[in-house]
Amino acid sequence: MNSQKIKYPLILVNFKAYREATGSNALRLAKIAEEVHNETGVCVSLAPQFCDIRLLAEEVTLPIFAQHVDPISFGGFTGSVLPDAIKEAGATGTLINHSERQLKISEIAEAIRISKELGLTTVACANSESVSAALAALGPEIISIEPPQLIGTGIAVSKAQPQLVSGTIKTAKSVNESVHILCGAGITSGEDVAAALRLGSEGVLLASGLVKAKDPRIVLLDMTRAVTSRKGV
Amino acid sequence: MNSQKIKYPLILVNFKAYREATGSNALRLAKIAEEVHNETGVCVSLAPQFCDIRLLAEEVTLPIFAQHVDPISFGGFTGSVLPDAIKEAGATGTLINHSERQLKISEIAEAIRISKELGLTTVACANSESVSAALAALGPEIISIEPPQLIGTGIAVSKAQPQLVSGTIKTAKSVNESVHILCGAGITSGEDVAAALRLGSEGVLLASGLVKAKDPRIVLLDMTRAVTSRKGV
Amino acid sequence: MNSQKIKYPLILVNFKAYREATGSNALRLAKIAEEVHNETGVCVSLAPQFCDIRLLAEEVTLPIFAQHVDPISFGGFTGSVLPDAIKEAGATGTLINHSERQLKISEIAEAIRISKELGLTTVACANSESVSAALAALGPEIISIEPPQLIGTGIAVSKAQPQLVSGTIKTAKSVNESVHILCGAGITSGEDVAAALRLGSEGVLLASGLVKAKDPRIVLLDMTRAVTSRKGV
Amino acid sequence: MNSQKIKYPLILVNFKAYREATGSNALRLAKIAEEVHNETGVCVSLAPQFCDIRLLAEEVTLPIFAQHVDPISFGGFTGSVLPDAIKEAGATGTLINHSERQLKISEIAEAIRISKELGLTTVACANSESVSAALAALGPEIISIEPPQLIGTGIAVSKAQPQLVSGTIKTAKSVNESVHILCGAGITSGEDVAAALRLGSEGVLLASGLVKAKDPRIVLLDMTRAVTSRKGV
Repeated sequence: MNSQKIKYPLILVNFKAYREATGSNALRLAKIAEEVHNETGVCVSLAPQFCDIRLLAEEVTLPIFAQHVDPISFGGFTGSVLPDAIKEAGATGTLINHSERQLKISEIAEAIRISKELGLTTVACANSESVSAALAALGPEIISIEPPQLIGTGIAVSKAQPQLVSGTIKTAKSVNESVHILCGAGITSGEDVAAALRLGSEGVLLASGLVKAKDPRIVLLDMTRAVTSRKGV
Repeated sequence: MNSQKIKYPLILVNFKAYREATGSNALRLAKIAEEVHNETGVCVSLAPQFCDIRLLAEEVTLPIFAQHVDPISFGGFTGSVLPDAIKEAGATGTLINHSERQLKISEIAEAIRISKELGLTTVACANSESVSAALAALGPEIISIEPPQLIGTGIAVSKAQPQLVSGTIKTAKSVNESVHILCGAGITSGEDVAAALRLGSEGVLLASGLVKAKDPRIVLLDMTRAVTSRKGV
Repeated sequence: MNSQKIKYPLILVNFKAYREATGSNALRLAKIAEEVHNETGVCVSLAPQFCDIRLLAEEVTLPIFAQHVDPISFGGFTGSVLPDAIKEAGATGTLINHSERQLKISEIAEAIRISKELGLTTVACANSESVSAALAALGPEIISIEPPQLIGTGIAVSKAQPQLVSGTIKTAKSVNESVHILCGAGITSGEDVAAALRLGSEGVLLASGLVKAKDPRIVLLDMTRAVTSRKGV
Repeated sequence: MNSQKIKYPLILVNFKAYREATGSNALRLAKIAEEVHNETGVCVSLAPQFCDIRLLAEEVTLPIFAQHVDPISFGGFTGSVLPDAIKEAGATGTLINHSERQLKISEIAEAIRISKELGLTTVACANSESVSAALAALGPEIISIEPPQLIGTGIAVSKAQPQLVSGTIKTAKSVNESVHILCGAGITSGEDVAAALRLGSEGVLLASGLVKAKDPRIVLLDMTRAVTSRKGV
């Protein structure tokens, strides 16, 4: 059972609906991530599909995130994702408002409120500096800034738009100083992670850069090294 | 592992996001349903929340349905429900277009097509006779007719609107004669199930009538008796 | 005031949100269409933006369609498109479920029902043969078949996918024999219109092919000639 | 043609899809509002349905708002509400994210950005204090705070939840000090308006309280008196 706390810098891996990260492939990838964590001590968290949450939460010790929750409590909601259910399945947190699963603003506010009441760590996703500031006002623990046009491109936001990352951190913290900022979109290497951390973010949210890598272990080790070498400074 | 085929008449239980049917409660309810099936031979299927699909598919032999799938194949779809993933988790089928999780018509067509290609049994939900006919044209294996105003009321559609059930069967079969019709909304007793079968439906889709019953075993036994006594005729 | 009835073959022009067809440009384009109609007798209808419906309905005699309606009657619906309102503004009909403004199936059923009660001509849009059959079951006066991948390409559905058009006509009419079929997507010339009519459709739904043409009058005249020369046969 | 500037305190009347405020009824109501404005000098603005915007903008001198805009510029967007189009039709501003027409947060950000570029006054609607703060970060000129549970009840937010109004003003202005705050939901009388202004809001957004009043002129006069008597203080 996963018992780990979230630590920063954080490497959060979104499994999306990729074949390489579904079902038994998800478990295989999670085991690799767990080994890299055990070797390096860097906090690696995983966001698998809903029906793989329990499997991963039972089989690895890493923190597990849902990719989305609906702003609901127990009741007559067919086909929705109940925060209580993902928590009981073993999740320690959830993404909210990923650019591929956006919500209305009142739904984001409610999803954050309900998730926090349950002790789930909330990662609200933003596509711009002003949206980051708006999300900060809703009180998530973490904001991940991801320009949609860079998602899946291999062009790292931390290198292509450094001012977006540093500006977002400043603006979001001016609204809510306790919020943590991750940097997403296009992260594929340790160098991208290092750039993200240098700009002041406290970690990365990534997906295809790791999930679809030829050798995910090597890529993840490279990324953790960017974290540990910085810590050593 | 669930290995059962769907048989008609079918009792399909939608767990929704009810507390009584989430996580360990879902498993407890599934075990009761399995026992009733073993005693009576009536086909009972269960539609738990996404993150409980694998748990139930591993622990009981009944057919397990997802409550919804998105019209997608493997790829970059954060927070979506991938048909391939629910199948690998052990589902044998899925609800589509439940009144609490409605889809655009092109999404329904695509969700049915993808699910069928994977061998998943599709249950498309309709709220009226004309929508039933429209869904029949999209080729699901099963259509469930549920007037939204009766859902959760305890007023059985098979008794409150008998002409809706019989009319729907006729109209839907005129468009697609191989489609099976379930009758949903307000089903709480064996008497309701018997009424549904008399009208020509091949089973029921129910939720709170069983999930929130004081003694689900007694209610489900009563419902299966309506099936077996009819079969005896 | 527009007093014309819809006649087949029908050339229905969707103004979308194109600059060339907004506000005073919409009126200019409508005047050209009216002149071509007056010269040729071919039924040309226009679907401008909501806030241009009244302007066009007052200034030209052609039938005016809304691009969308919501499935509502009078009430507390902020930001929705009320069928009663577009009718009072002068519309004679409406598109429903255009691929750029898709609806849930129960909403389509209700939007068609409400519009028909008000005497509005309904044009339901489909992206495939099976969706066309499904829509036919919901009773619109017209179905327009538009493969989304051809919209705006200049590759006419009537030439690229002739079997889609003829197959759709057959399938949709087997469900509802009184429905009229238009053929959309990629229509840019009289030749495309002629191909559409030869395949058995009763007209075309087009947009950029006319709206963004260098000389819309010449293009529209060419299209009407395809209609009149066919009628002469 | 409407040439008025927005002035505070502002009385903004949402016509929704009410029968009493559609088409010719909308015009009749607008004429009454114009007379009351002319008599009292209080700024009264009107938000009619899309297809009535041009009619009202041509016939009365009051500022006209759209009830919603989509976050788009000119292009292939069927059934959407183009900010450029409502501006050309005569609107001076628009509601955004009304509780009956909510948007994703990235859409709100974009709709505000596009509208402001066109010189349209933006009124972003919030259902809670935290959502108000979030919206403030997106830079609208006005935020209207409306608890959905009070809409249409006749229970004024300014009296039922005074701390919501004053708290919202404080929180929203801490994020964006130039934003103006309106108070919506349940406003039916001059007394409600007076309460709203005493709490620090700069006006009201109301709908049924005026639109469905037996004598809208008397109600509106009463409301404007609450404004003028306060100004006199």
